[in-house]
Amino acid sequence: MSKKWVYLYNEVEKAEEYAGSWDGVRGLLGGKGANLAEMTRIGIPVPPFFTVTTEGCIAFIKEGNQFPVGMWEQMLDAMKGIEAKAGKTFGDPNNPLLVSVRSGAKFSMPGMMDTVLNVGLNDETAKGMVKLTGNERFVFDAYRRLIAMFGSVVLGINDGLFEEKLDEMKEKAGTKADTDLTADHLKELVEEFKVVTREAKGFDFPQDPYEQVRLATEAVFSSWNGARAIAYRRRANIADDLGTAVNICTMVFGNMGDDSGTGVAFTRDPQTGEKVMFGEYLLNAQGEDVVAGIRNANPIVQMKEDLPEAYQQFMDISDKLEQHYHNMQDVEFTIERRTLWMLQTRDGKRTAKSAVKIAVDMVNEGLITKEEAIKRVDTDHVDTLLHPQFNAETMNAARDEGRFFVSGVNASPGAAVGRAYFDADLAEEKAHEGQDVIMVRPFTKPDDVHGMLAAKGILTTEGGATSHAAVVARQFGVPCVVGASTAKIDMAQREISSNGVTIKEGDWISVDGTTGEVFLGVVDVIAPELEEQVELLTLLGWADEITATEGIRESVNGSPTRGLQVWANADYPADAERARTYGAKGIGLCRTEHMFFEPERLPTVQAFILAKDEKTRTEKINLLLPYQRSDFYGLFEAMTGLPVIIRLIDPPLHEFMPNEDDIFEEVISMRVKGETEGLAEKEQLLNTIRAMHESNPMMGMRGVRLSIVMPALVEMQVRAIFEAAADAKIDGFEPKPEVMIPLTGTVEELRWIQPRLVRIAKAVMEEKGVEFEYKFGTMIEIPRAAVTANEIAEMAEFFSFGTNDLTQMTFGYSRDDAERAFLVTYIEEGVLKVNPFQQIDREGVGRLMAMAVADGRSARPDLEVGICGEHGGDPSSIEFCHLVGNNYVSCSPFRVPVARLAAAHAALKHRK
Amino acid sequence: MSKKWVYLYNEVEKAEEYAGSWDGVRGLLGGKGANLAEMTRIGIPVPPFFTVTTEGCIAFIKEGNQFPVGMWEQMLDAMKGIEAKAGKTFGDPNNPLLVSVRSGAKFSMPGMMDTVLNVGLNDETAKGMVKLTGNERFVFDAYRRLIAMFGSVVLGINDGLFEEKLDEMKEKAGTKADTDLTADHLKELVEEFKVVTREAKGFDFPQDPYEQVRLATEAVFSSWNGARAIAYRRRANIADDLGTAVNICTMVFGNMGDDSGTGVAFTRDPQTGEKVMFGEYLLNAQGEDVVAGIRNANPIVQMKEDLPEAYQQFMDISDKLEQHYHNMQDVEFTIERRTLWMLQTRDGKRTAKSAVKIAVDMVNEGLITKEEAIKRVDTDHVDTLLHPQFNAETMNAARDEGRFFVSGVNASPGAAVGRAYFDADLAEEKAHEGQDVIMVRPFTKPDDVHGMLAAKGILTTEGGATSHAAVVARQFGVPCVVGASTAKIDMAQREISSNGVTIKEGDWISVDGTTGEVFLGVVDVIAPELEEQVELLTLLGWADEITATEGIRESVNGSPTRGLQVWANADYPADAERARTYGAKGIGLCRTEHMFFEPERLPTVQAFILAKDEKTRTEKINLLLPYQRSDFYGLFEAMTGLPVIIRLIDPPLHEFMPNEDDIFEEVISMRVKGETEGLAEKEQLLNTIRAMHESNPMMGMRGVRLSIVMPALVEMQVRAIFEAAADAKIDGFEPKPEVMIPLTGTVEELRWIQPRLVRIAKAVMEEKGVEFEYKFGTMIEIPRAAVTANEIAEMAEFFSFGTNDLTQMTFGYSRDDAERAFLVTYIEEGVLKVNPFQQIDREGVGRLMAMAVADGRSARPDLEVGICGEHGGDPSSIEFCHLVGNNYVSCSPFRVPVARLAAAHAALKHRK
Repeated sequence: MSKKWVYLYNEVEKAEEYAGSWDGVRGLLGGKGANLAEMTRIGIPVPPFFTVTTEGCIAFIKEGNQFPVGMWEQMLDAMKGIEAKAGKTFGDPNNPLLVSVRSGAKFSMPGMMDTVLNVGLNDETAKGMVKLTGNERFVFDAYRRLIAMFGSVVLGINDGLFEEKLDEMKEKAGTKADTDLTADHLKELVEEFKVVTREAKGFDFPQDPYEQVRLATEAVFSSWNGARAIAYRRRANIADDLGTAVNICTMVFGNMGDDSGTGVAFTRDPQTGEKVMFGEYLLNAQGEDVVAGIRNANPIVQMKEDLPEAYQQFMDISDKLEQHYHNMQDVEFTIERRTLWMLQTRDGKRTAKSAVKIAVDMVNEGLITKEEAIKRVDTDHVDTLLHPQFNAETMNAARDEGRFFVSGVNASPGAAVGRAYFDADLAEEKAHEGQDVIMVRPFTKPDDVHGMLAAKGILTTEGGATSHAAVVARQFGVPCVVGASTAKIDMAQREISSNGVTIKEGDWISVDGTTGEVFLGVVDVIAPELEEQVELLTLLGWADEITATEGIRESVNGSPTRGLQVWANADYPADAERARTYGAKGIGLCRTEHMFFEPERLPTVQAFILAKDEKTRTEKINLLLPYQRSDFYGLFEAMTGLPVIIRLIDPPLHEFMPNEDDIFEEVISMRVKGETEGLAEKEQLLNTIRAMHESNPMMGMRGVRLSIVMPALVEMQVRAIFEAAADAKIDGFEPKPEVMIPLTGTVEELRWIQPRLVRIAKAVMEEKGVEFEYKFGTMIEIPRAAVTANEIAEMAEFFSFGTNDLTQMTFGYSRDDAERAFLVTYIEEGVLKVNPFQQIDREGVGRLMAMAVADGRSARPDLEVGICGEHGGDPSSIEFCHLVGNNYVSCSPFRVPVARLAAAHAALKHRK
Repeated sequence: MSKKWVYLYNEVEKAEEYAGSWDGVRGLLGGKGANLAEMTRIGIPVPPFFTVTTEGCIAFIKEGNQFPVGMWEQMLDAMKGIEAKAGKTFGDPNNPLLVSVRSGAKFSMPGMMDTVLNVGLNDETAKGMVKLTGNERFVFDAYRRLIAMFGSVVLGINDGLFEEKLDEMKEKAGTKADTDLTADHLKELVEEFKVVTREAKGFDFPQDPYEQVRLATEAVFSSWNGARAIAYRRRANIADDLGTAVNICTMVFGNMGDDSGTGVAFTRDPQTGEKVMFGEYLLNAQGEDVVAGIRNANPIVQMKEDLPEAYQQFMDISDKLEQHYHNMQDVEFTIERRTLWMLQTRDGKRTAKSAVKIAVDMVNEGLITKEEAIKRVDTDHVDTLLHPQFNAETMNAARDEGRFFVSGVNASPGAAVGRAYFDADLAEEKAHEGQDVIMVRPFTKPDDVHGMLAAKGILTTEGGATSHAAVVARQFGVPCVVGASTAKIDMAQREISSNGVTIKEGDWISVDGTTGEVFLGVVDVIAPELEEQVELLTLLGWADEITATEGIRESVNGSPTRGLQVWANADYPADAERARTYGAKGIGLCRTEHMFFEPERLPTVQAFILAKDEKTRTEKINLLLPYQRSDFYGLFEAMTGLPVIIRLIDPPLHEFMPNEDDIFEEVISMRVKGETEGLAEKEQLLNTIRAMHESNPMMGMRGVRLSIVMPALVEMQVRAIFEAAADAKIDGFEPKPEVMIPLTGTVEELRWIQPRLVRIAKAVMEEKGVEFEYKFGTMIEIPRAAVTANEIAEMAEFFSFGTNDLTQMTFGYSRDDAERAFLVTYIEEGVLKVNPFQQIDREGVGRLMAMAVADGRSARPDLEVGICGEHGGDPSSIEFCHLVGNNYVSCSPFRVPVARLAAAHAALKHRK
């Protein structure tokens, strides 16, 4: 007996038995098929259908695009099953069954063949349908749609050819709306569409209904391996061997007159998350008219007036679906002659704001647990909520300056500023070149997704809040305005005009997806305030609870390590305050050298560097002490009671000197001109700077190396740290200084420098007569430090992974050079899957980190381990830090909320 | 009962029982004490003595420079033991026993208190001695020596103060030789020396013989932790907790008249290794006169005439010692009134040449095994034998130009050219600054060793072939001429003069330790020919045999890995030929980029880099193909039958471009002068070079990165390699090309480039109609490659550790910058024990290597693993490569013999 490739509408239990879980059912039948079957099971009206499994797709591809043994026979049997239920017969001119053929993978994805409606129509069944319905216009409207859809999506004919014919026909009929075309017009169109098919493909539109089904099914399967689908899967990290299912579903018609209609809706507002039905609906129309945004639809409440019974039924079903799925649903429905049919349900895509609100509301409604709420919200959502928004002031100024351009539907919130480009390919190309891009289109299609993803913002002139552009933009958090219908796009001239103002390709525009407004030129943006986002604060609070309870890991020595904390990188008291507001539990990195670059201090720093004798050097260094002490005092004040890791000076000294080329140019110029006054001094300065020049400064004299060659600088810093901490303590704060030594490569470096610094720490505490806890530790950013962590941990009380440098040296990539020279090529060519400076490379850098944690803790069981590289704010990297047993991650204050959620995600994903 | 701190002359069995082995006895009694005891045991005449153990020394230091419980009592007992044997009593004016107090550690080392003779003399015993010997001159000569030696070495008085008095006395006596001083002169000197002691120390020279012994013993123990001793131990890698023993030995006197004498000798010639007694001897003298080279001694054969019976006895004893120790001995003896006493024997230090000859001869004589011979010869010896020597031609030219300066005793062979410096501290300082230094001194003392080690060569005006300078120079392979007595050193003027010519401090001189000649200025040096060094060739042949049989290691997968082979790095056919002559079994690294720098090719390379279009680029690349092909053909010809690893282009392209600063200077200068002709082109060139500039080129676009961004270059190289190999095959050679891809960090790089290159290789073989074996592999020089070696080995058929870059990136040291900026400080401060660029850092870099070998072989059991960094020629690193399971090391052709011996050493040291 051959494998079961096909499941009938009422076989969801069988599928569950075979697949073992609901997730398995979704994998087997695809999301769409699984939900149709589930709706059927719980008594929601769904037209009879059957699903060809994703396993069938994979088998089809494996066998060289051939149906595997038994599949077609099972499809024929299943067709009999739905014929029986529907009381119609496929291909029977007297009582024809029509079906839709729709793809449905486990995860919804663009780039695949989507839908062919009205399959089963041909010249004969069309006649039968006319007899049966008495509605010739309806039948030929359906027939012409079939031929065009089949031609474009199954046979791969350019759909512009069909649209051209439609436009010509509308012109001929003197109308602008499809609905105004008569049955005769449509009959004529059917014939013209047949000609288009014959001319394009060399064969006729297939009249055999079974051949239609078979070809459409094959087309769905084949599209799984289309270039766009593969590209999308790669980007979204979807496995290639999942395959797509095919759903073959009895057609119901929303276009059978004014007692019919069709709509799409979200059970809650996908933009704000409010608990109100949100959707669009069209009387006497087929679903695609709404989804594609080709006709401007009515709000869903309109249905209450048009079809009150169906409306009430729909509201009840929606409620039932939310209760059943414990999630906001995105549904499609059709009303055929007052009978409501649900055609699809799925978890609704939503904006960041609504994701958070819905998750929190549903916990409060008792629909889901806090854990579920945490899982529901992506870190990207949180990121988006903290994304820049337009500044009201500059926005008003722009209005006053007459820079308002157009307004449309606020489809995906957020502010975007960039240059206008008018097609997806160009948008992507310009974005890769580093430009900020706004993609401008009449409307978008699945083919455009690559450009939409590359864009900072999207603007369309057609479609509504559930149009393709709006849905995709919300999913990916790209600010988007749709249906800005007062503007016109001229694709030939590549420009968009509104009220006599024209924006050419490449011009700057600003798009406000929150209000739906579009401005000429650049409008300034500001960061939003976390304090005002009540639901987000609630959610993050839950995240911290979950991390604390579920995130406990077994340490190397068997004792538990607390859940991963989130600390922040902050150089100034103001940063530290923001970090604390955002929920940071400590400062993981204060870079002290920033303090040296301030204009009032830099000359002193330079004088120190150029000092010829020890006396001058000490003198200059001591001038810097009060500055540093007051910087540190502010940090201890802001972070009272929490640890503050202060990194001793890290960069090479030449970074504090004037630019070599500038001085060189001055010297040459003076020499050529024969100017002698001041030349000698300039030459000497040049020589000094040149003597400091390093061929690879990244690996040169910096960090602890500098401290060993020239300890005066860090001795001053440690004195400043402990004097500040002592003063803070005296003033009633609770300072917890942790001194971090950068660039350590061998434990001997710590053996040399650390005791000298500890002596100063103790001396200061004695002088000031106070005591407080402190630690001395090190960055782990040199591969050798990771490899010899057992030795390093003998001295260091904490490790902080400097994953920027650790990545640079583990890969041998100079970041600045690499990103410019070959990293882009590497990612394009698939040599690297992701940029290792954005996401920790687990196999290489990560293996070193794991070694370091294990070896370090074996030498010092209570070793505190964190990360302060940029990876500290990246969710995948945070998950990895959870896995290797870090105590905390430290990231920029703005990323702290994202990191808190990511930590909770990791805790839940990997709990025992 | 307290521990046994003291062993009497006849207690060697007790010592052996306690210490467990002969090595243990040497550890317990020190080398000197152990050998004295051993000689006593086998019936060789040794004056009665006892030894205070090294454990006593360590206990003394631990207890704060106090004798541990029981030690002094045991010493008093032992003194009784030697009194009984000698028939004299220590401190008894009527029949006084005198003793020497000498240090003796397990390994002989400079920097410690060495010897005090005549201990036991005081005003009373001196009188007794006069009565007993009737020789007042002898007694007071001994007494004044005791006071001076005791004063300088035990009490730390500047010995110049005693020398000054001696010189004054000689002047007063109108003589130049100590021997011409009368008893009265010496009596007066004794009194003057007592004054010197009192004035320097504030107390009198101790009259109590037991106090003398006690203070001398304490001084020896204390000197173990003197700064120089510690410095030496650090350099020579001797553990600090070994301690030194103290030998207290009955004095015998070579200065009791013309029936007495003293001498030092080697049982074979320590310079050439010939089997002839080699030594010096003085009638009527104490040993120090010979050793210090203060009086010019007679050759040992003179003794045959003076004291024929003692001579014959000495020759027999020498023979017995060689037979007993199976090694050439360095002995000291004294004849007191025709009775021969042996005062010391030890394995003789020798030149590289003699080490090799003696080892090979002794195998042929049946005294030692081949393995023992291999162990006896240091890799440094081999290195020295291949060290540069003066070129006969330039040497003759120098003579013709009148640049001959002086000639002396050829004490340590080899050629040295450098600047003259007149004291050890300055010599060391200048050498650290990077100068080539020749240390010039009247004679040397243990205090001078640091300068001698830092020098390229040594010249003394006093002393003979067994003087301190000669012995140390031979040990460390520093070319040395001693006793150039026609030259005079003026320390005040800091210059040396001979025959009216003066060399000032800092002037260049050339020292030929092989012939004993010294020249003004610089004389050219050449490399010696290995072919002529018959014994060395024999020894290296044995080394290869031993490596092949004893060097087999168990591999990761349990199958054996053959003994470590030695391959060579060679870029040109001539290098390859030399490598093969020197015994290389393959080429481990051919750097192809050197071929691009040749003047006739560089413009083409630059044109390739600057090409604006693909056509020009391909055109230029193809111009380089014939050059590369012919280079490679020569390599395959020279290495027929052996593997040749060719590395594809590695450096960044900007290395092939003109210097940026030069062009910048030209541009600025033209701009300032207002010159416009050609300015635009120059500016464009400058911009191009600047665009290629990288902030850290070491980690930039080079190696495989360059190949992926711009594959044309390596495609040409691979074509050239395989065309050359095919041609060689056709011409009857047996080419074994192995293509090495540099700078790999991820297996995906290999997945991208390797198949493209393999395709070319196969295409060429098909075009040429020949087949031969080949491999594709990679450098492991990026830490990530080592960490992900299991993946890399899926593609790479061989690994070659590029330990230069691997060390740079594992430590995060840019080598050029580091050595200039902080590496010296690090080594001085003990942060690094050795320079990791000279010797593989086993804990860090080595751990990565070990991981890479294990993981690589787990993925590909027959993975070929080698090393081609500079470490490939370093013995410690070679040992490490043996331990991690390398198949071969590859080093410069000149280092191949050293590496062959080092491989055998490793095989023997670690055999199962």
